[in-house]
Amino acid sequence: MVNVAILGFGTVGSGVADVLTMNRDLIRQRAGKEVALKYILDVREFPDSPYKDCFVKDFSVIENDPEVDVVVETIGGATVALDFTRRALAAGKSVVSSNKELVATHGYELLQLAAEKGVSYLFEASVGGGIPVLRPLTNCLAGNELSEVRGILNGTTNYILTRMIRAGLSFDQALKEAQDNGYAERDPSADIEGHDACRKICILAALAFGRHVYPQWVPTQGITAITLADVDYANSCGYKIKLLGRALKMDDDKVCAYVAPHLVSGENPLSGVEDVFNAIAATGNAVGDVMFYGRGAGKLPTASAVVGDVVDIAKDVTAPKRNQWAAGDEAMIQSPDCLSFRWYVRANGTMDAARSAVGDITPLARSGAPASEIAFLTESMTQAQLNSKLAGMEVLSSIRVLG
Amino acid sequence: MVNVAILGFGTVGSGVADVLTMNRDLIRQRAGKEVALKYILDVREFPDSPYKDCFVKDFSVIENDPEVDVVVETIGGATVALDFTRRALAAGKSVVSSNKELVATHGYELLQLAAEKGVSYLFEASVGGGIPVLRPLTNCLAGNELSEVRGILNGTTNYILTRMIRAGLSFDQALKEAQDNGYAERDPSADIEGHDACRKICILAALAFGRHVYPQWVPTQGITAITLADVDYANSCGYKIKLLGRALKMDDDKVCAYVAPHLVSGENPLSGVEDVFNAIAATGNAVGDVMFYGRGAGKLPTASAVVGDVVDIAKDVTAPKRNQWAAGDEAMIQSPDCLSFRWYVRANGTMDAARSAVGDITPLARSGAPASEIAFLTESMTQAQLNSKLAGMEVLSSIRVLG
Repeated sequence: MVNVAILGFGTVGSGVADVLTMNRDLIRQRAGKEVALKYILDVREFPDSPYKDCFVKDFSVIENDPEVDVVVETIGGATVALDFTRRALAAGKSVVSSNKELVATHGYELLQLAAEKGVSYLFEASVGGGIPVLRPLTNCLAGNELSEVRGILNGTTNYILTRMIRAGLSFDQALKEAQDNGYAERDPSADIEGHDACRKICILAALAFGRHVYPQWVPTQGITAITLADVDYANSCGYKIKLLGRALKMDDDKVCAYVAPHLVSGENPLSGVEDVFNAIAATGNAVGDVMFYGRGAGKLPTASAVVGDVVDIAKDVTAPKRNQWAAGDEAMIQSPDCLSFRWYVRANGTMDAARSAVGDITPLARSGAPASEIAFLTESMTQAQLNSKLAGMEVLSSIRVLG
Repeated sequence: MVNVAILGFGTVGSGVADVLTMNRDLIRQRAGKEVALKYILDVREFPDSPYKDCFVKDFSVIENDPEVDVVVETIGGATVALDFTRRALAAGKSVVSSNKELVATHGYELLQLAAEKGVSYLFEASVGGGIPVLRPLTNCLAGNELSEVRGILNGTTNYILTRMIRAGLSFDQALKEAQDNGYAERDPSADIEGHDACRKICILAALAFGRHVYPQWVPTQGITAITLADVDYANSCGYKIKLLGRALKMDDDKVCAYVAPHLVSGENPLSGVEDVFNAIAATGNAVGDVMFYGRGAGKLPTASAVVGDVVDIAKDVTAPKRNQWAAGDEAMIQSPDCLSFRWYVRANGTMDAARSAVGDITPLARSGAPASEIAFLTESMTQAQLNSKLAGMEVLSSIRVLG
């Protein structure tokens, strides 16, 4: 028998309780033993909950109960969650987390602590919600040298962009709709400014390349500046605008990671990922390209990933999962300014002026464009090269094209 | 140090040797120890091979060498491969296989033997080539009751269908091109008749639903009857024709599995899987739909999956991987005749006659159709219902539509 304590009875925490309950028989079968919910920590009262006998308000009850084997942390943030995670690991309990902020900011330290204590710290749910991605990356692709991990890592922004593309909504209208549907929070900045995707690409980069990458080292651009004009021009040449997180292995083992909108070709399977779905693609020197697709958020999908980790630990609580990466080192980070792209550019001016400034360009057209507006795709160049060529032009937007 | 012996130096076997060599340092790092290639078994001579010192012709050398921990079986078929796999497991060695025929026909027996001997029998490479799919299904989705697994499981047929759809080649032309490109064998029947996909859906069904499903229980239809006319009609209504393997959990724990071409909606991510790529989708009661995508065949992608299994075993050769299913039982198999679908039908006749025979239909059109030809989509019904309604018509083709 393995006893589980859930920290935080919000969307994900209550989902974990529900999945442990509704799939109890098959979880017992797969773990080879009973996996029982013993505690739920929350400051609030839930007198009508089916789990009402499990609630405690004091973390030390969980910390000091030697029968608790696995602590599920779904509190979020990096303050209380950090304290409780440290204390749970220090008390010799394995911890399973869905908390991308905590893993992205303190993952190295917590993995070290777990290793010292001979327990596991697993966080499949922190990236891609229910999509199996971290374990496949580290286990199934263990025979590969990975050169890149990239993906649509945030469901809220993908929903907004999909509604702009398919329904012709403006960014503000699509954001409002996402909020009305519960896909975006009242304060949507962590999603639309790209911070959520940034934390996830940090975790993917650490697992793929073996070294902690901190969010503050990752240039991050959201989707607030994307207009319907950009969506229309992209569509006219067979592209869709997607917010991507990318992490690339560079020469000398350096890592380049960033978050930004991209024009993604209709030939690329990432372009077909719509609504709140996420997808993570990886490139390995043996496997080539693989992609993992599914629901990147939501109560039960995220709980599915948490419970997968719990079952993995429950199979043998005495055998901690090896899941390590090295300390971060800013000297090993390379700016995305070193990368060359084709660029999509929208500007006020004439195509002739653009051609003489930028060189070979592919003109784009859309119906209803103001007479002064032009748009085009450039040849491949770095951000600095683009900026210098565009210096004399009135640029309305410039977006990377995924090669 | 973990010693590996490879059985069979064909495409996959030589790929495994190459991946173990080219990624040796990072494999050591991930396994926590050296993973060394000690033997390659092949009846042929390879005097110029970089691995020439590893070759042996007598399996008993491997069987009797206590230093060999992991045997990689890439022989194929279910005769010699079965004998050697049994003997390797009986000798206390873990076995990693890319051999879908052997797993689909003798998986239960071999997994039992592995469990008795306290070793592992792993076969990630047997389905989806390099795509991580079996381990994510059994580990990451362990908290889910799975209701369905389905996929594009054969790269050769997907290449042929893609070329018919995109280049307007006939089936015979596309097959010839696939053979010229090395994607199809001289005798292509295992691919184009659906037998390869059948073996793979048997393995997926066993892992997803916990019981061996034998290929002879799985109704299997290939793509040899698909014409350009069908491709055009499908395209006219936003569908692509794909060869799918499907396995569904039915009432009373019964399993329904079959292989057949389907019209797949452009909204379904499986429709965007082109060329030799494969994709496997699963539906769980917590996670919803997930999909795994990548190269389903080829030397290095398949070797990537094999080496992933080898690394997993090498981490701790004394801890066998739990990977079991129950014996097969034909009484638990339900025929796909119980399933209802919308159907695509092409026939000689008039739309009025079709309407009076079939009821509500959606007429389809294509340019260049003979005057006598009609095509339409039906409402949802079983195969038996469709057959009875179409009894008086001259049917040219009927294909399931994926709902």
